[in-house]
Amino acid sequence: MENPLDPGASISARLVEAGRRLERRGWSLGTSGNFSAVVSEDPLRLAITASGVDKASLSEKDIVEVDENARLVRGDGRPSAEAHLHVAVVKARGAGAVLHTHSVWTTVLTDATEAGEISIRGYEMLKGLAGVQTHEHEESVPILENAQDMPKLAGNLEGILAKRPGAHAFLLRRHGLYTWGRDLPEAVRHAEILEFLFEVVGRSRSLGRD
Amino acid sequence: MENPLDPGASISARLVEAGRRLERRGWSLGTSGNFSAVVSEDPLRLAITASGVDKASLSEKDIVEVDENARLVRGDGRPSAEAHLHVAVVKARGAGAVLHTHSVWTTVLTDATEAGEISIRGYEMLKGLAGVQTHEHEESVPILENAQDMPKLAGNLEGILAKRPGAHAFLLRRHGLYTWGRDLPEAVRHAEILEFLFEVVGRSRSLGRD
Amino acid sequence: MENPLDPGASISARLVEAGRRLERRGWSLGTSGNFSAVVSEDPLRLAITASGVDKASLSEKDIVEVDENARLVRGDGRPSAEAHLHVAVVKARGAGAVLHTHSVWTTVLTDATEAGEISIRGYEMLKGLAGVQTHEHEESVPILENAQDMPKLAGNLEGILAKRPGAHAFLLRRHGLYTWGRDLPEAVRHAEILEFLFEVVGRSRSLGRD
Amino acid sequence: MENPLDPGASISARLVEAGRRLERRGWSLGTSGNFSAVVSEDPLRLAITASGVDKASLSEKDIVEVDENARLVRGDGRPSAEAHLHVAVVKARGAGAVLHTHSVWTTVLTDATEAGEISIRGYEMLKGLAGVQTHEHEESVPILENAQDMPKLAGNLEGILAKRPGAHAFLLRRHGLYTWGRDLPEAVRHAEILEFLFEVVGRSRSLGRD
Repeated sequence: MENPLDPGASISARLVEAGRRLERRGWSLGTSGNFSAVVSEDPLRLAITASGVDKASLSEKDIVEVDENARLVRGDGRPSAEAHLHVAVVKARGAGAVLHTHSVWTTVLTDATEAGEISIRGYEMLKGLAGVQTHEHEESVPILENAQDMPKLAGNLEGILAKRPGAHAFLLRRHGLYTWGRDLPEAVRHAEILEFLFEVVGRSRSLGRD
Repeated sequence: MENPLDPGASISARLVEAGRRLERRGWSLGTSGNFSAVVSEDPLRLAITASGVDKASLSEKDIVEVDENARLVRGDGRPSAEAHLHVAVVKARGAGAVLHTHSVWTTVLTDATEAGEISIRGYEMLKGLAGVQTHEHEESVPILENAQDMPKLAGNLEGILAKRPGAHAFLLRRHGLYTWGRDLPEAVRHAEILEFLFEVVGRSRSLGRD
Repeated sequence: MENPLDPGASISARLVEAGRRLERRGWSLGTSGNFSAVVSEDPLRLAITASGVDKASLSEKDIVEVDENARLVRGDGRPSAEAHLHVAVVKARGAGAVLHTHSVWTTVLTDATEAGEISIRGYEMLKGLAGVQTHEHEESVPILENAQDMPKLAGNLEGILAKRPGAHAFLLRRHGLYTWGRDLPEAVRHAEILEFLFEVVGRSRSLGRD
Repeated sequence: MENPLDPGASISARLVEAGRRLERRGWSLGTSGNFSAVVSEDPLRLAITASGVDKASLSEKDIVEVDENARLVRGDGRPSAEAHLHVAVVKARGAGAVLHTHSVWTTVLTDATEAGEISIRGYEMLKGLAGVQTHEHEESVPILENAQDMPKLAGNLEGILAKRPGAHAFLLRRHGLYTWGRDLPEAVRHAEILEFLFEVVGRSRSLGRD
């Protein structure tokens, strides 16, 4: 993403740039990860990366459009089954973009953590999350158990998001991170901040910090 | 590999792109690694990187062609001695492409593991392996003892592949990973997935997980 | 920064190149980090990255100018609140450029260190710091407690810099590194040297070295 | 180094490509590292990177030429004080190129190792070292104590190289790696192989392997 803030580019072009940036950071290998942005709110339409697409060679033809039930309404290709989670986040949070990264550190940490959440506090980087004013903020990121029944998982997610109105993200166990923002640049910023912080947590544990 | 799925490029051009991508990921330093794709099935012909080629500057002139006995039939340069292993995989699995990466983590883990295999289970990333439908899948990757007698090693490999029809890959101890796919994009996807997962296993062990 | 030494480029262009280089190294994710260079000494004018700017897509329009009180005097955008720290460093050290990076390792180490400083000695890389003639040099990098009241933090910093005239840098706890130089290339060199050395310290601790 | 084997490029151009590649790999930050290649054998002339040059922006104007006593004979800029070590290696080994990298892992390992050498054996990657035929090879890399008196250090080095005719490299403690080859591509290959293997050794130790 040379310039994710460029207001002149199409939503598809901006999704491609965002996806390629996250892939370059190593967070979307082997066709993992999926990325979406809201095209219209009423009726709800999301541009989203198609299932099984290689993110290193992502192009606009790999972006499809889904409706409020995560059904394909435009483009060639199958929307990812995880489109249900993207739609659930957009509905619950009014997000303009949703990004799912799949990094080594979030995979390692959700495997190594027994609890249903990972809390991060005291780091300056937290101030980059929307609405956070101080490094003393504690961000508690819920961990959902991974599952293949996406509509059911989306239902669980709706419950979690309703109970945690302040959460900026959630994790799927041994799977990865979902975060979002009011627009794509904010969502990219949140992804970079949270992936950075989970790497900090992981490396701190390797130094014997809990 | 800007677009490993591009059906218009020649097999050599696509092998070059695949090799350069894997090199950029740090999995093919110091002329290590070798990469092949099937040119014809009958008679069997494999395009394969020549021995001793620098992968960061890989070009089509570095691709040679071998027959079903791993003998050079086209191009300048010596086929890698490991061409015997590529041929054995193609025959056993009907693969369209075979990739051998040589990463730090597979080297570390095959040294640190006494057993004859490394099992990986419970990770979403496993679903990217062909035919795998759920993260609950257990992938058992056999470790072969390294050797310099390639025809003999190829014989051992044939035995292992026959006994493990579901395996998507194998490791050579203190040496690296071999994986394959029905075509080059699938083989690249498998390489990225498995290298990702071995990094997860390695970093998890550094956190004290077994 | 293809050539940070290029005397023909404008200060803004050189700041952009420096910022993009540090971002590529992974030390300025999620709009973190800020970078400045002196435009004039009397009256004091600093070119500095605006607040909240994505460093991967940094361009000259993202550079603003501030005065000796860190107030905006030119450009669109808000100067970072941390401009107060940049000004304090310029006044205390006569620096020509100040760079604030925000890396995983400085975040991890300032969290894991109880003391008010991290001392580094015996490494050849230290010789790249201005005025250091031997690897036997000991560089003691003070750690300031992080805070959101920037004028107050700038005051604390002035005290620390006055007490430690030989220091080439300081750390903010769970936040990152500040370093500087007589010009931008020297500041970039110092940032690379210190980030390298903190990674060395961090990885040494993960091997059980204190 | 897009193609270090390209016989058509000048020695300076090839040194620039080699240096930029090693910098991209993270082994030459903050102006550290220096790289040389033999221009003529009689009289002995080495092209070598000038002292204090930023390797990310390395260009042909940064390459100078020295004689058999490491004195400047051509170009603008001061040859690195370490040119004495390059000359000593060329004389002792008949090398065509000498590369000095300065990586995190060689710095960490030479600090963490009490002994005067690090031995590496059993890895396939060793076969990429000139003359090595099997992974069962043991490469013993001597560690010299770092010093600022370069002619004296060069004298110590001559003694070590005479005693260890099979060594492909040496380390300076808390400083970095020197390796060489009959030509620049071989030297680059050796640098990549040895940096890879030291990373393997370092990460293995972080898993509790000695």
